[in-house]
Amino acid sequence: MTHDTTSFSARLTAAIQSKGTPACIGLDPKASALPPALLQNISASENAPPHQLAEIYLQFCKGVIDVVAPLVPIVKPQLAYFEALGPHGTTALAEVIAYAHEKELLVLADGKRGDIGSTAEAYAAGWLAGPWAADALTVNPYLGLDSIEPFIKRATTTNAGIFVLVKTSNPGGKDFQDLKVDQSHVYDHVAKGVEAVAHKTAGDQQYGAVGAVVGATWPEQLTALRNAMPHTWILIPGFGHQGGTAAGVAGGFDEHGLGALVNSARGVIFAHSRPEINDGLQPHQWQTAVERACTQMIDQLAAETPAGKLR
Amino acid sequence: MTHDTTSFSARLTAAIQSKGTPACIGLDPKASALPPALLQNISASENAPPHQLAEIYLQFCKGVIDVVAPLVPIVKPQLAYFEALGPHGTTALAEVIAYAHEKELLVLADGKRGDIGSTAEAYAAGWLAGPWAADALTVNPYLGLDSIEPFIKRATTTNAGIFVLVKTSNPGGKDFQDLKVDQSHVYDHVAKGVEAVAHKTAGDQQYGAVGAVVGATWPEQLTALRNAMPHTWILIPGFGHQGGTAAGVAGGFDEHGLGALVNSARGVIFAHSRPEINDGLQPHQWQTAVERACTQMIDQLAAETPAGKLR
Repeated sequence: MTHDTTSFSARLTAAIQSKGTPACIGLDPKASALPPALLQNISASENAPPHQLAEIYLQFCKGVIDVVAPLVPIVKPQLAYFEALGPHGTTALAEVIAYAHEKELLVLADGKRGDIGSTAEAYAAGWLAGPWAADALTVNPYLGLDSIEPFIKRATTTNAGIFVLVKTSNPGGKDFQDLKVDQSHVYDHVAKGVEAVAHKTAGDQQYGAVGAVVGATWPEQLTALRNAMPHTWILIPGFGHQGGTAAGVAGGFDEHGLGALVNSARGVIFAHSRPEINDGLQPHQWQTAVERACTQMIDQLAAETPAGKLR
Repeated sequence: MTHDTTSFSARLTAAIQSKGTPACIGLDPKASALPPALLQNISASENAPPHQLAEIYLQFCKGVIDVVAPLVPIVKPQLAYFEALGPHGTTALAEVIAYAHEKELLVLADGKRGDIGSTAEAYAAGWLAGPWAADALTVNPYLGLDSIEPFIKRATTTNAGIFVLVKTSNPGGKDFQDLKVDQSHVYDHVAKGVEAVAHKTAGDQQYGAVGAVVGATWPEQLTALRNAMPHTWILIPGFGHQGGTAAGVAGGFDEHGLGALVNSARGVIFAHSRPEINDGLQPHQWQTAVERACTQMIDQLAAETPAGKLR
């Protein structure tokens, strides 16, 4: 999908409505979890030659994209796995993003970047449109609101978006995010700051260019944060493998089934290792497993959340 | 400096003592601030062809490294400026790191990375030794202590280090870091977590593999945090251009003049645009300006902080 004159929020809404689902597929090519059929002779350890692994990551991600492109609106490459391979990996990442765009998918770069002033500007310039050409980027708020501002500025001029970490899916997410401040938590303060800028960038639309990340593992807080951030897209990671359920993410949506993206990575892309999904398949049919798992996720979201209204 | 059998903390101590200064030079190749002599025909705007800018960034960083290698223990490439150029930039970054090592400098990769579980492991595997081969990496704590654990694990097995953001130099750093929790602040809680793991990795040494980032713009908090984190290296950015002074960072050191690294980027690497430093120099003599500014910084730290004892 090209960076045309339409805002990220409008493009995301259109893509969700066109595919009839808010499912986002995470591209997390962890070497040791890849389909054995792709690895052939090389070792899946982190000691394998980076250029060989990078080539396999590219092949794998293209294979996943081929399957999910007709089914979902957006993919989320996890930058860490590509970076882990050095420059060979980051070069492969650029090709993965370009390939997803060829297949008319939106691309959310999951980098959790964050820095100050002109350094934040540099990250924004690289990822939001720019050379990496992502449609959106995840951003870490620890450095404060002035550290997020350059990302917002860039996002609004390039019709891109950002998703700011608010309440993350991991157990340790509570260490600092849940510290009690007055009658609320640190994450509530972050949410308040995020909603303010999301509202500002929304114009006369419901949602703005600034979203939030809230883990699927916190259903109660998700509902509260949906209410506290009416102009904010919510990216909900942690579905499936991390324990988040379709019923658990229902609170992230508005009454039209919009306002949320639900991400699954391992549960879909590594579905070849889920016995109940992989049943009857040969090793070379790993893409069929991806398709089954993706369809299963889409069906679960449609059945158990307001996203069912999108169909 | 190779990743031998010596811990990061021991190698950093040795390098600081050998050079007689805790000065760290930030490699932040912002296109529009580069010495005009290097830019020649190409535009310094972000619209210049990325492969051309990447080549110039490499040339510039090598030129800075040539000057500062005999003077300081460590350099800190800012990943954002390289990433801003896409894969051409990240490829140049790998060459910059390799060149700094050739010149026997330690390399602290300033990426402020942070994620959970196997994603954090992937970042750690990429940066700490690994394909990028940095000696240390800056890490963002918002995702909690379990998100830092994979970095520590990797750092201790590869004799690398990490520096966790505690109190950042920018004005907005206070938005979330300074929120009041009980009788203290969010950053005090982060500092407590950092000190615990730093202590654990220190063995019978004073400092461990885990450091903290505390901005030069908060002298009072710096002194308090030095006392609260006796086993924690402190990286102090914000010296010079951002307003931090030598006197202001004095509180970051222990009584032996150790325990802190003071970073300056723009004030040193772009010294050609400081009239009082550049006086009498021709455009092609930008490296002389870098040398003058670096020496001035070293002298100021020696005169006004406990680091004077290192000489």
